[in-house]
Amino acid sequence: MKVDGQSFRSIWVEGDGWTIGAIDQRRLPHEFVIAKLTSCEEAADAIRAMLVRGAPLIGATAACGVALAMRVDASDAALERAYAMLIAARPTAINLKWALDEMRKTLAPLAPPDRARAAYVRAGEIAEEDVAINQAIGRHGLGLIEAIEPRKKPGQAINILTHCNAGWLATVDWGTATAPIYLAHDGGLNVHVWVDETRPRNQGASLTAWELSHHGVAHTVIADNTGGHLMQHGMVDLVITGTDRVTANGDVCNKIGTYLKALAAFDNGVPFYVALPSPTIDFSVFDGVRQIPIEQRGADEVATMTGRTREGKIETVRIVPDGSPVANYAFDVTPARLVSGLITERGVVQAERTALARAFPERAQNSRQGDIV
Amino acid sequence: MKVDGQSFRSIWVEGDGWTIGAIDQRRLPHEFVIAKLTSCEEAADAIRAMLVRGAPLIGATAACGVALAMRVDASDAALERAYAMLIAARPTAINLKWALDEMRKTLAPLAPPDRARAAYVRAGEIAEEDVAINQAIGRHGLGLIEAIEPRKKPGQAINILTHCNAGWLATVDWGTATAPIYLAHDGGLNVHVWVDETRPRNQGASLTAWELSHHGVAHTVIADNTGGHLMQHGMVDLVITGTDRVTANGDVCNKIGTYLKALAAFDNGVPFYVALPSPTIDFSVFDGVRQIPIEQRGADEVATMTGRTREGKIETVRIVPDGSPVANYAFDVTPARLVSGLITERGVVQAERTALARAFPERAQNSRQGDIV
Repeated sequence: MKVDGQSFRSIWVEGDGWTIGAIDQRRLPHEFVIAKLTSCEEAADAIRAMLVRGAPLIGATAACGVALAMRVDASDAALERAYAMLIAARPTAINLKWALDEMRKTLAPLAPPDRARAAYVRAGEIAEEDVAINQAIGRHGLGLIEAIEPRKKPGQAINILTHCNAGWLATVDWGTATAPIYLAHDGGLNVHVWVDETRPRNQGASLTAWELSHHGVAHTVIADNTGGHLMQHGMVDLVITGTDRVTANGDVCNKIGTYLKALAAFDNGVPFYVALPSPTIDFSVFDGVRQIPIEQRGADEVATMTGRTREGKIETVRIVPDGSPVANYAFDVTPARLVSGLITERGVVQAERTALARAFPERAQNSRQGDIV
Repeated sequence: MKVDGQSFRSIWVEGDGWTIGAIDQRRLPHEFVIAKLTSCEEAADAIRAMLVRGAPLIGATAACGVALAMRVDASDAALERAYAMLIAARPTAINLKWALDEMRKTLAPLAPPDRARAAYVRAGEIAEEDVAINQAIGRHGLGLIEAIEPRKKPGQAINILTHCNAGWLATVDWGTATAPIYLAHDGGLNVHVWVDETRPRNQGASLTAWELSHHGVAHTVIADNTGGHLMQHGMVDLVITGTDRVTANGDVCNKIGTYLKALAAFDNGVPFYVALPSPTIDFSVFDGVRQIPIEQRGADEVATMTGRTREGKIETVRIVPDGSPVANYAFDVTPARLVSGLITERGVVQAERTALARAFPERAQNSRQGDIV
């Protein structure tokens, strides 16, 4: 999408044909800095340190990390080392494992001298597939937004609430939750987005607001506490979030706090949709709340906040008193019963076991416990 | 309660017999600063600027503001000016109006020369009444905590979640939501408090954590997004919050985000209680969502965050990109159907019209639309 009028993706191969370029998302929204990744270690660090984040982008970055590794040493042992290093970089995202499995499947049968080139080709395909998938998600989600428009008076915006950043910065381009919004906006619909700031890492305030602003989409940043009040007062027409993992029965694991918004949407009859590329579906898991391990991250993310001072300096301030313990659960699980539908590249699918298996039969059957229909 | 081993209240008359001392709550948790209020204007400013906050403390401060005004000019006109100045300082809190009405009722019939002294006496009584009410709330709420204890294994804590600060800093002493917690802790029960940070003003992280820490109560600060996840996993036994206004039918207006926690508690069978002194009940309002005006505060509260830098300096940083609009709704309304009970000075009352009118018949009947039983 657009940054200062120029088209960007979140990750790309540089002009030298091998260095990986990526937007350093830790520096947004106050600085636009491009990072250059030149080794598998740097790719793993980028994932771990959240220089890149968002399930699809993590997958694409991991694929690039394998390509960087193969350039230096294309042995079986090096391939396994790269796999192990990258899979350990973030515990929850299913796309990470999916992308690494794709790379291994492609590379393992090849002779080592052919692997580096094949790795770049496959990593490039994974990126292009992500873009195509997001465009398809956008087209299917657009229908949901278009269906709201006839209820609006002239000049009234269609209000969409989103949590965290499932925007183009979380993918290779377009985003998942934002793809329908960008398509609606580009197509001339009057959309306005309520952007949850998304504590503790503030991906909504720092990333979603930044990308919507640069693309010219009307939006308002709100504290995470606000969505319920807005929904009670008819100020939200539709919720669209992304997800890090969807179970075989449609439970949605996403950024902590998503479950609270889903409860509020349900309580107020506001449709709650989740946008995702199908690799995000984990057909081996059937109970999200019980089975999905929830990553706990460092206390500093809650105890401190980073931003720009009046003098333009990036500074971190402590907001919790010294000596007060802090807990930082990164994700929660929204039970399928609260989800109006899943916006996938194959259409809007009910958050329900049979519907998901019917929409993605090849994936449902390949899973270990896939014999479910 | 205790600060560095010394007993404090949140507001008091200084040794000179007329200056009002108060803890400057904007400086917490990093600095403990005492403010001296010497005029009605300063009292109104203290309320407006949130040097003091919390419905009962706002009421007590307003009463002190009237006393400060009477010291200088005890005419009828001055009394009305003080009333008008103080009532305008914060729009939502019902205690503010209640305390000012009490002061006017006491002072108006007196000859002007008698008003200053009577004002200090009545303001002192209002403060003492608040302390006594909170102690009574504490005794009634303690029963709810004690009832959980038999279900706990040895060494297992009773986990209580709270939102915002309805602690002793929000009242004159003891707090409302915290009074049962302090009593339980002082009585040797093993309690642990999940403290919502409470964006945008962070009263949980900065005030509740600070006061629990100083009193030695085990606690953990969490992002506001976290409570639903904790409840799904059996990690919350009880929710207790405060409130700024309760309607005649038991709807609860409280800090933005309370409604989301109530939804999560309801969804997970976790009891959700609200602690309040009875002046907080507004028997003239019957539909909280439709009738209670919700204060909108400045964008900077959401767009920036204040804390302590590594070098020990208090600094404000901007966390929202330049040019992104911000909305800041300060409160929301939790419908009575989600409230397990109201912990009042007269006992735990069902959040329901008949029960409330029965518990507080003198107040229900005095209200304009009070003829409801």
